[in-house]
Amino acid sequence: MAHAVSPLAQPLPDLPPIAGVRLGATAAGIRYVGRDDLVMVELAPGTTVAGVFTTNRCPGAPIDWCRSALKGGKARALVVNAGNANVFTGRAGADAVRQSAEAAAELVGCRSREVFIASTGVIGQPLPVEKITAALPSLHASLAEDGWERAARAIMTTDTFPKAATRTARIGETEVRISGIAKGSGMIAPDMATMLAFVFTDAKLPAPLLQRLLTKGVATSFNCITVDSDTSTSDTLLLFATGTAKHPRVPPEGGPILRGFRTALDAVLHELALLVVRDGEGAQKLIKVSVSGAVSATSARRVALSIANSPLVKTAIAGEDANWGRIVMAVGKAGEPADRDRLGVAIGGVWMARNGTVVEGYDEAPVVAHIKGREVDIAVDLGLGRGAATVWTCDLTHAYIDINGSYRS
Amino acid sequence: MAHAVSPLAQPLPDLPPIAGVRLGATAAGIRYVGRDDLVMVELAPGTTVAGVFTTNRCPGAPIDWCRSALKGGKARALVVNAGNANVFTGRAGADAVRQSAEAAAELVGCRSREVFIASTGVIGQPLPVEKITAALPSLHASLAEDGWERAARAIMTTDTFPKAATRTARIGETEVRISGIAKGSGMIAPDMATMLAFVFTDAKLPAPLLQRLLTKGVATSFNCITVDSDTSTSDTLLLFATGTAKHPRVPPEGGPILRGFRTALDAVLHELALLVVRDGEGAQKLIKVSVSGAVSATSARRVALSIANSPLVKTAIAGEDANWGRIVMAVGKAGEPADRDRLGVAIGGVWMARNGTVVEGYDEAPVVAHIKGREVDIAVDLGLGRGAATVWTCDLTHAYIDINGSYRS
Repeated sequence: MAHAVSPLAQPLPDLPPIAGVRLGATAAGIRYVGRDDLVMVELAPGTTVAGVFTTNRCPGAPIDWCRSALKGGKARALVVNAGNANVFTGRAGADAVRQSAEAAAELVGCRSREVFIASTGVIGQPLPVEKITAALPSLHASLAEDGWERAARAIMTTDTFPKAATRTARIGETEVRISGIAKGSGMIAPDMATMLAFVFTDAKLPAPLLQRLLTKGVATSFNCITVDSDTSTSDTLLLFATGTAKHPRVPPEGGPILRGFRTALDAVLHELALLVVRDGEGAQKLIKVSVSGAVSATSARRVALSIANSPLVKTAIAGEDANWGRIVMAVGKAGEPADRDRLGVAIGGVWMARNGTVVEGYDEAPVVAHIKGREVDIAVDLGLGRGAATVWTCDLTHAYIDINGSYRS
Repeated sequence: MAHAVSPLAQPLPDLPPIAGVRLGATAAGIRYVGRDDLVMVELAPGTTVAGVFTTNRCPGAPIDWCRSALKGGKARALVVNAGNANVFTGRAGADAVRQSAEAAAELVGCRSREVFIASTGVIGQPLPVEKITAALPSLHASLAEDGWERAARAIMTTDTFPKAATRTARIGETEVRISGIAKGSGMIAPDMATMLAFVFTDAKLPAPLLQRLLTKGVATSFNCITVDSDTSTSDTLLLFATGTAKHPRVPPEGGPILRGFRTALDAVLHELALLVVRDGEGAQKLIKVSVSGAVSATSARRVALSIANSPLVKTAIAGEDANWGRIVMAVGKAGEPADRDRLGVAIGGVWMARNGTVVEGYDEAPVVAHIKGREVDIAVDLGLGRGAATVWTCDLTHAYIDINGSYRS
C-alpha cells in the first residue's frame, strides 16, 4: 500500500458538520495493520436513502443486503470496512453482513434493515466479522459530527489520497449542505457506481425523489469515468438525506424549488468521480475524452469509452506521444456508426486530423507541449449527428503494473 | 524495435516450397533502416483467394482495396509492406494502394485487381509509395520458391520473432501442403483477422469454398485470441490456393474428401494465431482461458474474452498471483448470464472456488507452482448450460508499457 501519492491528487476540502450525521473510524484489524479500516455513520431518525450499485453479475454480499434494505427507503446507520470486500464468500459472507447490521442496529436502536453495509478490498477471503462486531460498540460511542476526514481515510485501499467534496445550495431561503466521501482507484469502469461513495445532506427529501436525483446525477459523473475497464463487484453509491434542515416542503416530483440542490448534488458527484480518476492506479495524467457529432448521446459515450479504455491510447499518453492514429483505431473498434472520411481528432484543442487524413500543415509542437502536462484533452468529432458525451480516464503506466502484480502480497 | 525476443517464442519451422508460389523481400526504406520491409509474392495463374478483414470502422486503404478485389476470387500477386499502415491517409492513401497494385500487375502480367495489398505499421502518415514502386522491379526479379523465412521476417513490426506454420494433408491420394506466415504483437483483439497472415496451398479449390473454409477456421483460431483488446485497422488474413496439385476434383460444397484438408488448415490457422499471442507485446506468459457451463457457445466466448481482456487478471498473472477473485470479477462484468452461487474457478486444473465460495481445504501451493510457469490455464465453469469456448491471451507486463509508450519515437 506504500505507493506514492498521485501527482493528480487534490487536497481534502474542509467538511463542516451536517446536522443528523455523526461519524467516526477505528482500527479493527480486518486486514491492514496500524490504520483505521472500519467506519460507522449514525443518521438521525427520519433519514431517507437512495443507492446505485454495481452491474457486475457476481456482486458481493453487502450489495445483496443494500439492494434489499433500500426498498425500505430509510436509513439510520452505515458500516463500511476496508481490506476485505466480502465477495464470493458464499453463505458465510451473507451471514457476516447480517451480523454486522444487527450489531449496529442494536447500538443505534433501529431495525437491521435500516443499516447499510459496504466492504472493499480483497475478493474471496472470509470476512472476519467478529473483528467488526467487537469494534463497533466503542466506535459507536466515539461518533462525532467532525469525523469526516478520518472516515474518508479509513475507507481507502489502493487509494493514495482521501477523497471528499462538499457544496451548499438553497431550498427556498434555507441553506442545505451536501458532502460526500469516496474511495476507488482500480477496478473502475462505468455502468455502476464504480467504487464506494457516500453522500450526505441535511435536506428533507422523500426516498423516491432522492433516488431519481441520484440516478440522474450518476449518468454524467460516476458512469462517465473509467480507470481500467474492470467493473468491481462491490461498487456502491449511497445518498442519505437526514431531513434536519428547516426548508419549505419539497413536492414529491421535485420541481423548480430543487434546481439549486440538483446543481450542487451533481457538482459533488462529479467532483468525487473525478477524484477517483485522479487516483487511478498508477495515474500520471488525467485524460478527458469528448466525443461530438455522433448519431446519439449513447453512441458518443460508447465511442468515448472505447478511446478511454484503449490500452494503446493510454500508454501513448503515458509516453507523451501524440499518437492520434491510436485514437482513430479506438473510434473504429467501438462498433458504433463512424465514417473514417468524416472523422476529426484533436488533442489540446488542436485539430490534427480531419476528414479522414492529417490536417494540412499540422504542427505537432503545441500538441506535444499540451500532452506533457498533467491534464490531457482529447476531442473527436464523428461528423455524423448531434450526439455528444464526455468521459474521464487516466493514463496506463508502469505503476499500474506494479500495484496490480502484487496487490495481495 | 530492439525488444528482447519473447520467452514464449517458437522456432521458425522449415517451410518447403509450394508449387505456384514464389516470394521474396527487400529493404525499400519505407520506415525502417537496414532491414527488409517489403514483400512480394507471385502466384500461378488460376490461383483462387479468400480473405477475412478487420471489423474496425476506420480501416486502412489496403483493406478497402482487398475487400473489393476479393469479389473477383482470383489472385496473381501479393504486396506487403511493414513500417507504415497506410491508415487514415485519405485520398492519397487510396491512390498509393492503386499505384502499388498497378506496378505489381505490370510486372506479373495480370489485372491490378488480381493483386492484393497489405500494410502494417504506424497510422496516419502518408505512405511513400514511390519507394515501393521503385523497389518492386528488382524484388520481382528475385522471387523464388524458398523465400519464406525472409518474407516472414520482413513483415514484422513490434514482433520479436518471425511466425510461420505448415502442414500437409491428402485430398484423395494426393498430398497437398498448407503454409502460412503471420505478424502481430499489439493491437490484437478478436472479431477479425487481428493482424496480417497469409496462408498458401497448392490445393485446387474454388474461391467460394475457400472462403467458407477460412471463415470457419478463423472462428476458433484468430477470433479467439486477444493481446490488448485493441482492434487493428489493418487486420488481414488471406488464403491463396494455387491449384497446382493434381488431386481429384473437389465438389463446390467440399464434403468428405476435404476432411483432412480442413483439419490441416485449421491447425495452421490455430498455430499462427497462437504464435501471435506468444509474441504479444511484453508477454511473459501464455494464458489459456476455457469457459464451460455457459448458456451458449457465444456466451462462453464473451465471458472468456472478458477474462482474457481484464487488465487486473492479466497483471495478476504477470505477478504470479493466483488472485481468482479477479477472475470472478471479470466473469461478472461480462454482462452474460452467470450465477455467482454456481460459479467455479480453476487454475492449472485445481478448482479453487466452487458454488460461490472458496473450496474447502483449498491448497494454494500447486496453483502457485503452475502460475510460475510459462503457460497458465484458467478454467471457469458457469454451471448453467452446455456452452463452451476457449480463448488465448498473454499477461500484461512492464514491457507492454515500455513498447507502447514509445512506439513512434
